[in-house]
Amino acid sequence: MNSNLRNQDSTEDERRCGFMREAIGLSRESVGAGGGPFGAVVVRADDVVGRGQNSVTLLNDPTAHAEIIAIRRACESLGSFHLHGCELFTSCEPCPMCLGAVLWSRLDRVWYANSRADAAAIGFDDSAFYEEFSKPVDERRIPMTRLLRDEARATFEAWQHSTGKTPY
Amino acid sequence: MNSNLRNQDSTEDERRCGFMREAIGLSRESVGAGGGPFGAVVVRADDVVGRGQNSVTLLNDPTAHAEIIAIRRACESLGSFHLHGCELFTSCEPCPMCLGAVLWSRLDRVWYANSRADAAAIGFDDSAFYEEFSKPVDERRIPMTRLLRDEARATFEAWQHSTGKTPY
Repeated sequence: MNSNLRNQDSTEDERRCGFMREAIGLSRESVGAGGGPFGAVVVRADDVVGRGQNSVTLLNDPTAHAEIIAIRRACESLGSFHLHGCELFTSCEPCPMCLGAVLWSRLDRVWYANSRADAAAIGFDDSAFYEEFSKPVDERRIPMTRLLRDEARATFEAWQHSTGKTPY
Repeated sequence: MNSNLRNQDSTEDERRCGFMREAIGLSRESVGAGGGPFGAVVVRADDVVGRGQNSVTLLNDPTAHAEIIAIRRACESLGSFHLHGCELFTSCEPCPMCLGAVLWSRLDRVWYANSRADAAAIGFDDSAFYEEFSKPVDERRIPMTRLLRDEARATFEAWQHSTGKTPY
């Protein structure tokens, strides 16, 4: 490896660590403000386009995880429901809800610091929730039952034939 | 089974089907308004406490699924970040993001009509996304890499020792 490539690598490392430190800083600030110990930023090239802090208990909103808020703000600021070309830096591995949001928002890449095991060690359910996903529907902790499928199917057919729809 | 029990069953069936028809009605309305073909209601006893329609493309918000919106509104209306004692009726099986939200919000029960396979058949990724959850982190479609764990751990320690926190 020549010294130019080494310099590029170290610049890229500094860039990444800078954004991760911003996410970690948001998580630290959040604890001080009475929120959950999680922070996240969405980055496009060299710009932060969305920031989030876990505000579940402050907002009475179980979906107000740092990543969800950062993704929503990034989409708002870019005027798009997709985040192609963007990266997420989050102070902790995304929980299943946030991993779902990462997939739907089509982010390019995720960087994380604490893991689901670290979160479990301080009393959060991320790791236990991941286990739910590999279980068959009828063995999950929250019962899920099918109802009125035939009536619901008509809406999917209407969607298929609708000309005004925006697929995503 | 005596006739009283049969009557109770049929009243309970009618109750459930009524709420599911409201969720399906919201999904139908949503297609007409240019949104996604999904609707959901959160119910406590005999009252709808939150309604949602898929508004991803209308709001430029990839997290604006029917279930997420219904859960957020229910929490707002009940002034709580938990939905113990509530049921979710959704026109389609929750995607992984929404299943995560169901778990975090501690709903008692989920009723659904269309399945993830029905959603896949009209072009939605719910089923493919479920497969991502059973893969090891390094085999997923969106790369996830760990960074600065030691710096992030300090926030978790601060949370553990914080006296002003609201655990959830």
